[in-house]
Amino acid sequence: MAAPDSRTRITLVGAGTIGLSFAALHLAYLASPTQLSIVDTRPDLEEYVRSTLPKYLAPALHGLISSIRLSASLPDAVRDADVIQEQGPENLAFKATVWKEVVQHAKPDALLWSSTSGITATSQAEAAALDDAAAARLLVVHPYNPSHVMPLLEVVLGSRTSSETVERTVSFWRARQREPVVLKRECKGFVANRLAFALLREAVHLVNEGVVGVEEVDRIVETSMGPRWAVAGPFKSYHVGGGAGGLEGFFKNIGGTVQECWQDGGQVNVGEEWEQTISRQAREAYGTVDVESRDRRTKAVLDAARSA
Amino acid sequence: MAAPDSRTRITLVGAGTIGLSFAALHLAYLASPTQLSIVDTRPDLEEYVRSTLPKYLAPALHGLISSIRLSASLPDAVRDADVIQEQGPENLAFKATVWKEVVQHAKPDALLWSSTSGITATSQAEAAALDDAAAARLLVVHPYNPSHVMPLLEVVLGSRTSSETVERTVSFWRARQREPVVLKRECKGFVANRLAFALLREAVHLVNEGVVGVEEVDRIVETSMGPRWAVAGPFKSYHVGGGAGGLEGFFKNIGGTVQECWQDGGQVNVGEEWEQTISRQAREAYGTVDVESRDRRTKAVLDAARSA
Repeated sequence: MAAPDSRTRITLVGAGTIGLSFAALHLAYLASPTQLSIVDTRPDLEEYVRSTLPKYLAPALHGLISSIRLSASLPDAVRDADVIQEQGPENLAFKATVWKEVVQHAKPDALLWSSTSGITATSQAEAAALDDAAAARLLVVHPYNPSHVMPLLEVVLGSRTSSETVERTVSFWRARQREPVVLKRECKGFVANRLAFALLREAVHLVNEGVVGVEEVDRIVETSMGPRWAVAGPFKSYHVGGGAGGLEGFFKNIGGTVQECWQDGGQVNVGEEWEQTISRQAREAYGTVDVESRDRRTKAVLDAARSA
Repeated sequence: MAAPDSRTRITLVGAGTIGLSFAALHLAYLASPTQLSIVDTRPDLEEYVRSTLPKYLAPALHGLISSIRLSASLPDAVRDADVIQEQGPENLAFKATVWKEVVQHAKPDALLWSSTSGITATSQAEAAALDDAAAARLLVVHPYNPSHVMPLLEVVLGSRTSSETVERTVSFWRARQREPVVLKRECKGFVANRLAFALLREAVHLVNEGVVGVEEVDRIVETSMGPRWAVAGPFKSYHVGGGAGGLEGFFKNIGGTVQECWQDGGQVNVGEEWEQTISRQAREAYGTVDVESRDRRTKAVLDAARSA
């Protein structure tokens, strides 16, 4: 189980859902649970971690939880860390404060990872007034929720991030059977969410137009592109679809239809009336979803896609 | 293996990829392979079916192939069929000619299914000058390729399709462990392709903008939304993501980011320069894809999503 870098010391800043999900992931790969620190100022931190973390963790690992180092003091928690991974509130001021304090107390070669879904490393380094040596070690490592299940990590460099930082980060995650994908440049919302949101927008439009309901959209995706894309992403799939001509053949054959669909596509906006209709449909269809069962099935799907 | 309607006689019009894929699916559920007819005017039909169909079929079923009824004559092939399923060229004139001839020779209660990906049943019935009794039995049953693997069938009614036709069609497919989803009304491109194309457009845009390459897009989708959506579609996923607030909570929490991503999204068009760049990237990355392995893994993913 222990990865090449199993002696790495990791400090998680922020014990929300993402923090605990990462804690579960790290615990499975560390030589000792004492290498993991969680820092958070909530007064009930110990009780909270002890009651919540088991939900993310295989029963065999529950015994490790009591050995995790918990702290309310950022300076104490980061002092001997090799990796400092931040998943605090999504606002620049918070992140700037964290990194300012972190670089005063952390080792000079500690990796600095932000789990942000949208605040770039460039802006974080600038807001924290990091010097070049610190900014070189800061980048975004954006997980796909929940991170102890989903392999993807979007690695997004800031303007001053060093290539050494990228290499160390990528090999850390590869050793944990994760899928770090390095983006070539920063962009609004990064890639995974943007792709998913684009499909969501069209789904909302089609529900809005009365073509399908919320449940039908989900059934359609679950029985077609979901399983297909678990095995071969969209470009690879359409490359196959184009036969010997590849993607060019695909667009030659049905590019006209693709373009017509694009032109007929909807440009709904957040805050419009559809939000209520669609939320009500989802609530009526799904109520409270059994997330543990969903995650168990997702793990089985990931195993199947890899191994068959 | 035999479904409730295992004595159904099925005639496939058109022996292309979709036709043979459906042939493989039907063979697994019919009491006898003689209940399946394939009609196509290609001169090498027998040799072609005998050499191509095994690729879609479990080895245990290869022995059935020689008993399929093959014909170049539409009138002969449809005479005793309960279901006539058309997957010819995607043009209205062809389909009109087929249905005109079919209704002259088929039983008066035969179901008429078109596998078209975009020509509505309303326009097909009209172009074929079908009377109401025939138009009532015609609808679109749009598969997701390859149809012997992927469960989804989009069932799209024409303006004169009867509810009895829909019920018979849906129960036929349910008995075959397929997922027929009835659309509430006809629309350009139907739903599955429109959703996939919307994501594709954003993917092209992000490659075009230099944020990621073709392979990175595929890896991102394969390790995040693909497996997730194989288990829970986009609305269900974001309903969970919103916590107790459901989809409304989701949009309350991160609706601002969603809207920013939508506004920053790209409106690329078919026929622009990116087609060459992206096709070349896909060809370099993937060359010739092992489709059998892909389909084997897709089946494993589908089983995992259902059973775990």
